[in-house]
Amino acid sequence: MEFELLKTSENSRARAGNITTDHGKIETPIFMPVGTAGSVKGIHTRDLHEDINAQIILGNTYHLYLRPGIDVIEKAGGLHKFNRWNGPILTDSGGYQVFSLGDIRKLGEDGARFQSHIDGSYHMFTPENVMDIQRSIGADIIMAFDECSPGDADYNYAKNSLELTQRWLERCFVQFNKTEPKYDHRQSLFPIVQGNTFEDLRKIAVAHVKNFDADGYAIGGLSVGEAEEIMYEMTEVCTADLPTDKPRYLMGVGTPVNILESIERGIDMFDCVMPTRNGRNGMLFTSKGIINIKNKKWENDHSVIDEDEHSFVDQYSKSYLRHLIISNEMLGAQIASQHNLAFYLWLVKTARQKIIDGNFESWKREMVVKLKERL
Amino acid sequence: MEFELLKTSENSRARAGNITTDHGKIETPIFMPVGTAGSVKGIHTRDLHEDINAQIILGNTYHLYLRPGIDVIEKAGGLHKFNRWNGPILTDSGGYQVFSLGDIRKLGEDGARFQSHIDGSYHMFTPENVMDIQRSIGADIIMAFDECSPGDADYNYAKNSLELTQRWLERCFVQFNKTEPKYDHRQSLFPIVQGNTFEDLRKIAVAHVKNFDADGYAIGGLSVGEAEEIMYEMTEVCTADLPTDKPRYLMGVGTPVNILESIERGIDMFDCVMPTRNGRNGMLFTSKGIINIKNKKWENDHSVIDEDEHSFVDQYSKSYLRHLIISNEMLGAQIASQHNLAFYLWLVKTARQKIIDGNFESWKREMVVKLKERL
Repeated sequence: MEFELLKTSENSRARAGNITTDHGKIETPIFMPVGTAGSVKGIHTRDLHEDINAQIILGNTYHLYLRPGIDVIEKAGGLHKFNRWNGPILTDSGGYQVFSLGDIRKLGEDGARFQSHIDGSYHMFTPENVMDIQRSIGADIIMAFDECSPGDADYNYAKNSLELTQRWLERCFVQFNKTEPKYDHRQSLFPIVQGNTFEDLRKIAVAHVKNFDADGYAIGGLSVGEAEEIMYEMTEVCTADLPTDKPRYLMGVGTPVNILESIERGIDMFDCVMPTRNGRNGMLFTSKGIINIKNKKWENDHSVIDEDEHSFVDQYSKSYLRHLIISNEMLGAQIASQHNLAFYLWLVKTARQKIIDGNFESWKREMVVKLKERL
Repeated sequence: MEFELLKTSENSRARAGNITTDHGKIETPIFMPVGTAGSVKGIHTRDLHEDINAQIILGNTYHLYLRPGIDVIEKAGGLHKFNRWNGPILTDSGGYQVFSLGDIRKLGEDGARFQSHIDGSYHMFTPENVMDIQRSIGADIIMAFDECSPGDADYNYAKNSLELTQRWLERCFVQFNKTEPKYDHRQSLFPIVQGNTFEDLRKIAVAHVKNFDADGYAIGGLSVGEAEEIMYEMTEVCTADLPTDKPRYLMGVGTPVNILESIERGIDMFDCVMPTRNGRNGMLFTSKGIINIKNKKWENDHSVIDEDEHSFVDQYSKSYLRHLIISNEMLGAQIASQHNLAFYLWLVKTARQKIIDGNFESWKREMVVKLKERL
């Protein structure tokens, strides 16, 4: 994987770049639609390519490992063959999901023992087998196995957790370096910077991950309940010290405003379930603000969903979409998800162009005001 | 609406024709995807047009009347404008749905009083207001308000029910003839032949509906639990006497085999929820037989869903579709529904071509064997 930094803004840390993978180019900053179980919920692969203009999608190690299982994905020839998405893929390591399991997982030095949320069966994730599993899934970018400490953890918990994540990272790289890709394309391993909301821990974490000559670096453990200002502050702490010649990925973030604020702070890659999950519940993101389509005010609004037409679905009317969402018609969830993803991709594409043109910050200031509006 | 009978088979009653509506042409025999609440579940309007090659879709008076309500549809400018399907639409009258409500509806000479399945509110359907409602929805073809007698009704019940349906039909035509379309296209009212499984009642019903110079005639009250042979027998009884110069619509039918058998017996139009409903549960119809994709045998079948490629979705693999359906991923329901509808449309299109070519019956005999296979 190669990263070319095309431009850094003169007035902020905002950057435009190109990532080249064996499955194609990614223009950064980029938003990556989340396909947890191997499918971006409600969206055909064809529409991801042709309508939403997605450049890279996510899969999740935890979910894919449990179902359909690694054997099936290997026999398919990897996730790209399995889900027919032939662009770049990134897999999350499963660390976040395992730690979200709460009572049904147990953490030790070796790894995390957990029960499947599907059938209660017992499983063990270690830094080593998570690397192996991600070799089998075959994503272009794979993530280190880490502990994501709770948003309300105290300093001691966060420090111990970070140190465990650091030891696991070393084991991840050992395993990664002694194994080969299973399919005919390269894979890159991204470390994850943890450290909770403690500035010194974040600095220690960044210094540690820089010991590894990785193709990119992720920031984890944010957007887990802390105040937005804290998230931005921690992001700044990290991007101040991360290598400039490698992409930075802020995991699980966020709203359109979060994304613009984080781009300004030097982030290149984003993922979040918000466009699809909130879409299924009738929340639409537009360049004029947020629409709750269930609101009675849209009942007889027969204008198109979004006159900016980011997607072909924007031609449906607000009134019709409201009816579909309220009636629990699948098509409602499909339309809202597709609109939101297309909007997110439009947003990062426009941000990139503004960075290249040298006027990102002024555009961002205006957009942030509009994006927060409740229509 | 015009109907042109292009060809009647020399060896059966199978027919090929063209229906011309103000929203375009329909090539018969035709299958009509069901969009009960104004959307064909899981399918974008664009894909109905371009991928599935649907020529006409259904809406349902009962569902649309309750939600979004007639006021919303009128303000949209009719259902075509509301759901952005600009081809022909047919609306069922709501009779079947109201009678399916069982205990929460009460039938009288004037009409049917019923409770909404959504909020328990009370409503009344009469032949007159059902005509008015269908004027407001604005379908190209609208259906008479009828009673669909239970599949196990005795002769007396069926006779009384038919007579009520006949009186209601007269009221439907009076109301229809004294009202005008609300939008700038014509509407046609189809009577429904009832009579349960009693040959003499069916004959009486056919003779009665022929008193009305309708643009087409429907056969209702079949495929409601009776043996398939009875359904075919009743269909034959009806098509023997129905006018040859008007299209015949067999309501709510059915499996691919049912459709071919009924085409042979002189039916031109079909609708059924089976391709979408069974699709959502993982049942796929193909020209080689029926696939239950949940079956373990498909777990590692990485071949395409259907090599005949009726739809772009057929390029996904069986193994992937199985994973999606088992994991309750929306995309699974979307893929299976879209495949099945594309297959149904392919089936009737091919039947039409075989009728025109003069070899429908031999093709049908071969197909029926294959279609019944369990793969």
